[in-house]
Amino acid sequence: MQNAKPLPSYLIQRYHGWRATTYSDNKAWYRRLAESGQHPRAMVISCCDSRVHVTSIFGADEGEFFIHRNIANLVPPYTPDGKNHGTSATVEYAVQALKVAHIVVLGHSNCGGIKGCHDMCSGTAPELLESSSFVGRWMDILRPGFERVKDVDEADRTRALEKEAVLISLENLMTFPFVKTAVEDDRLTIHGLWTDVGEGALEQYDPAMGRFVKI
Amino acid sequence: MQNAKPLPSYLIQRYHGWRATTYSDNKAWYRRLAESGQHPRAMVISCCDSRVHVTSIFGADEGEFFIHRNIANLVPPYTPDGKNHGTSATVEYAVQALKVAHIVVLGHSNCGGIKGCHDMCSGTAPELLESSSFVGRWMDILRPGFERVKDVDEADRTRALEKEAVLISLENLMTFPFVKTAVEDDRLTIHGLWTDVGEGALEQYDPAMGRFVKI
Amino acid sequence: MQNAKPLPSYLIQRYHGWRATTYSDNKAWYRRLAESGQHPRAMVISCCDSRVHVTSIFGADEGEFFIHRNIANLVPPYTPDGKNHGTSATVEYAVQALKVAHIVVLGHSNCGGIKGCHDMCSGTAPELLESSSFVGRWMDILRPGFERVKDVDEADRTRALEKEAVLISLENLMTFPFVKTAVEDDRLTIHGLWTDVGEGALEQYDPAMGRFVKI
Amino acid sequence: MQNAKPLPSYLIQRYHGWRATTYSDNKAWYRRLAESGQHPRAMVISCCDSRVHVTSIFGADEGEFFIHRNIANLVPPYTPDGKNHGTSATVEYAVQALKVAHIVVLGHSNCGGIKGCHDMCSGTAPELLESSSFVGRWMDILRPGFERVKDVDEADRTRALEKEAVLISLENLMTFPFVKTAVEDDRLTIHGLWTDVGEGALEQYDPAMGRFVKI
Repeated sequence: MQNAKPLPSYLIQRYHGWRATTYSDNKAWYRRLAESGQHPRAMVISCCDSRVHVTSIFGADEGEFFIHRNIANLVPPYTPDGKNHGTSATVEYAVQALKVAHIVVLGHSNCGGIKGCHDMCSGTAPELLESSSFVGRWMDILRPGFERVKDVDEADRTRALEKEAVLISLENLMTFPFVKTAVEDDRLTIHGLWTDVGEGALEQYDPAMGRFVKI
Repeated sequence: MQNAKPLPSYLIQRYHGWRATTYSDNKAWYRRLAESGQHPRAMVISCCDSRVHVTSIFGADEGEFFIHRNIANLVPPYTPDGKNHGTSATVEYAVQALKVAHIVVLGHSNCGGIKGCHDMCSGTAPELLESSSFVGRWMDILRPGFERVKDVDEADRTRALEKEAVLISLENLMTFPFVKTAVEDDRLTIHGLWTDVGEGALEQYDPAMGRFVKI
Repeated sequence: MQNAKPLPSYLIQRYHGWRATTYSDNKAWYRRLAESGQHPRAMVISCCDSRVHVTSIFGADEGEFFIHRNIANLVPPYTPDGKNHGTSATVEYAVQALKVAHIVVLGHSNCGGIKGCHDMCSGTAPELLESSSFVGRWMDILRPGFERVKDVDEADRTRALEKEAVLISLENLMTFPFVKTAVEDDRLTIHGLWTDVGEGALEQYDPAMGRFVKI
Repeated sequence: MQNAKPLPSYLIQRYHGWRATTYSDNKAWYRRLAESGQHPRAMVISCCDSRVHVTSIFGADEGEFFIHRNIANLVPPYTPDGKNHGTSATVEYAVQALKVAHIVVLGHSNCGGIKGCHDMCSGTAPELLESSSFVGRWMDILRPGFERVKDVDEADRTRALEKEAVLISLENLMTFPFVKTAVEDDRLTIHGLWTDVGEGALEQYDPAMGRFVKI
């Protein structure tokens, strides 16, 4: 691996600062986490977007959330075909090995992946249709969601699709036999959230209302 | 989606606390992030492990890092087969759409996924060999790494494999044509890090030394 | 321009060192900054004093802070008289063109400009009263601040005036219509800091307490 | 000053990190700087642009450079009219009080202020002509520079203007009687530099060649 470069020095300085303060003040906790292993209460499936920090929103410290982040917080349907499926592996590990009590899918506003999916499905982003487009093929997971929102007013459609991405992920989660069993046995609950980055709002899906409701 | 449940109230309370303080004090920044879009400097590929918060270690706020988290911070080799590849989609989006200047792969000590890979390859975890094991099939990505460390002393072998996971990921990153081109054009640099959760140590891969070196 | 001289060779050597190391290691980031433009999160108004490096205190790298430095970190009141006003131009550019989310005014201990203002207002520096004294006329901006601290014990008066300089600047910032509007619309927040050079302390103005409080 | 807000918490954490490491390791130097005052060797006049850190390029520590930063690193002509002139005050303080040995004017590529000046003078940015435009009135200082480059090929004109900004500033510096005297007495030398942000190049003005030459 000859291509690896040294870390920029401002990050090295910040790391040393962290070690001299946050780490140093909490050494006992970090050591215990290392020795006793992690026992997170919840798994969070969130977007890679740099603007969404679930640990900040929920004041979560090291050890609290097992966090998977991918483009547009999507979970594909259960497909045990012997190929590698990174997201499915995180769900399996969280439920089977860590036995988390909650899986939270957290969508968000201004999502670039969702916008891409919208444009691809509307025919204005042909490059995402290419077989070689990883983003396009990943966003295929959300195609059934696009079908459900295509008659929504154009101004509101992307936002509606962001929320569908959460619902599609929850639905796909339930296709995993070990998730379904754990939910039915009351050993696991699943939750759908959507946050507005600019307004700091948080909404959760309410099955009784059939829509997302502000918290 | 009838299975979605309301969020536990302790999380709702923490969210309201965050909104009344952190969000409220930084509203201007969140709004600008929403309106002007994200311009993250770096992508970080880290583990889902609840004990590793890269934003804490590097004092990074919203908008700074585009973060993908999966089991064992692995990147699979470039495989444009038209199937969905969540990790490859994150790399493509970071490099092609966001044009990040750095990709940092951050491994860590006490990694459950790496331990599983070690056991699977050593023959003590036959369940991970099942075709239906998502974790097993995901950890197959690291098999070439296991070959390289299998003669290491057993006491040190898992740790060595954790570091190989970082190197394998860097190597696989370079199989993506758009990553290779960007690295060769000096528009992207890649970095390999490994952190010791209990000791708060940080090491980076130094190609000249051929090993990880403490920062 | 016949008077320009070659740069001292120690600076040329240091530049070549920087180019071979820091620049070379971070070339991708510098190129992106050049091509995609700057998107700084904050403007910092700080003193020219050689002892105050805001980028060091906050571990900030290129691209992070838009920095104006003048004598005593002063902002004059809004005066759109068609004359050239360098500081007002920096504020206008930061808020209107760059749309920064924060303006931080950073005062400091042992400030020579503030000491001069104190002496001028106390009558012990008549040369600063001359119409031709640029420093004197610049420090006139702080005269209302001197009025507020003139009854403070002499031992503490200069330090009190350093902090008044921060408050006067924040007050003057609010006289710019585009600053006021942005603050009222929650698109900009303003912050008053003061640092003790020798002690490495940092204080921020707390409106509820009506004074600077140690961070 | 009721509008001041608390500093974002990531900056507070970074500050504590700096204090526990950089400050702590260099306490003796910071204390001496506080007690013995600053004795900078050079004044640097640089742009506010977040991408240009003169302390990084020249490896300069606290105490070394007295730094004034404004839009487009401009110095206005000597105008002792009793009004406040922030830039002139910094020059006066550096030369008369600190007796610096060098004044370095550092221009740079991709300068937004210079681009604005170019557009204003070309007639494509009428808003900058408004009497109330602080940026426009500040960039008026560079109008004589625009006259000199207006016949340059359009592709190269902005870059040529960035370099003229450095020369105009050096010329204007020489209109200050105390600068002229100090230069003639060999107590002060002045230097014109221009840096290419993306390429990390540094050029200096060579009066014999009549142009900027790569260092």
